Amino acid sequence: MTKRDPVWAAIAAILRAEIASGACPPGSKLPTEAALSARFGVNRHTLRHALAALAEEGLVIARRGAGVFVAALPPTDYALGRRVRFQENVTASGRTPSRQVLRLETRPAEAAERAALGVALVHLYEGLSLADGVVLAQFRSAFPAERFPALPEALARLGSVTAALAEMGVCDYTRASTRITAKIARNPQAALMHLPEGAALLRTEAVNVDATGVPVEYGLTWFAGDHVALTVAPDARPQAGTSS
Amino acid sequence: MTKRDPVWAAIAAILRAEIASGACPPGSKLPTEAALSARFGVNRHTLRHALAALAEEGLVIARRGAGVFVAALPPTDYALGRRVRFQENVTASGRTPSRQVLRLETRPAEAAERAALGVALVHLYEGLSLADGVVLAQFRSAFPAERFPALPEALARLGSVTAALAEMGVCDYTRASTRITAKIARNPQAALMHLPEGAALLRTEAVNVDATGVPVEYGLTWFAGDHVALTVAPDARPQAGTSS
Repeated sequence: MTKRDPVWAAIAAILRAEIASGACPPGSKLPTEAALSARFGVNRHTLRHALAALAEEGLVIARRGAGVFVAALPPTDYALGRRVRFQENVTASGRTPSRQVLRLETRPAEAAERAALGVALVHLYEGLSLADGVVLAQFRSAFPAERFPALPEALARLGSVTAALAEMGVCDYTRASTRITAKIARNPQAALMHLPEGAALLRTEAVNVDATGVPVEYGLTWFAGDHVALTVAPDARPQAGTSS
Repeated sequence: MTKRDPVWAAIAAILRAEIASGACPPGSKLPTEAALSARFGVNRHTLRHALAALAEEGLVIARRGAGVFVAALPPTDYALGRRVRFQENVTASGRTPSRQVLRLETRPAEAAERAALGVALVHLYEGLSLADGVVLAQFRSAFPAERFPALPEALARLGSVTAALAEMGVCDYTRASTRITAKIARNPQAALMHLPEGAALLRTEAVNVDATGVPVEYGLTWFAGDHVALTVAPDARPQAGTSS
């Protein structure tokens, strides 16, 4: 069957092609609504429909009062599977992962950490996760301190939760639960993540367990909403329980 | 082991108890930072730490320039399992689900709908999902029109996707994939969802498939970030493939 696209869809297709061609590089500001309306010979309503479609696809971002900008990056797909590994997820999306550690300390567990881990003392590991140098997320993970006395040293040396836990004898761990909410970025967090205040964040609260089901990590992560899409495929079957 | 809570945690505990007692009802504005600082005899920094902890738990919401408000409802947990059913999810959280239909029409598929469903013509079902009368989400679902010619009538009559698809011979359907991003609510959507402009939204893009793996629904949902927490438990094993 034949389908005639509406005018707004045709305008969206033209702008999409211009963005894809590099004519409007990431971070650049699109012309004003008035200028674009005049260029395409349409009214504001039609033009806004086209821009809304591009925003929906994550290609452009409307900043209130400032205009419409080409998104810095297409969102990184981040899989919330049975094994959630930052480095693998970012590498799988074709980007280079890195981490910036902000804090590594041992302190009494706060209420949520105590509830999740069942311990009174935790190691806290806090920092930023980056992909190609862009901040994807801020993370704050708590680990049971008495079970893993040498973990902070291993985290500092190895820069990887998976590698550090492996040194502690946890050769595999899996995701028991994830709870996802949306938040607005406020300072100082917004500044830390290089986001404008008022940007959207995906906040996840997660528990990882060892092969016997004992919690080994309670983590909060705030993902930059413009840069990350969390993906869930409930059909994924559990795999054989060995790490790699 | 003994743990002395810091001052901010003690203040958070007092405010938490006051909110739980109903002394500060849902939607009410907390006293100003200056007033609370004076009441507890602490500086702004300590007070903000306490308020930030309550905001993190979803008990209060800071509205920029307007103050800090008691959250209208604790977030509804919404499970993204193998079977995602709005009515079951809301009922499981102890609330009463309802729906407000905004649009029910048949039209050519847009690009994303065509890609997901592999058809040129779709039925569009759009509306608001409520829990105890509060808007939880806006939804927009597309169904293959030629396979289910009578679906719009069934949706209008039954008010349930599960029941309407069952009448079309789809006695079970499961979630093949979900993609989650965070967005900022803008008008007209913010007004439609009874949210302030600038509020955080969880946007999900999902595909449901029938028992043979053929896509039967492509849906976008925008959840109110303050009212909903999406939960993922990757350990859930697929169950026997029958509906109830």
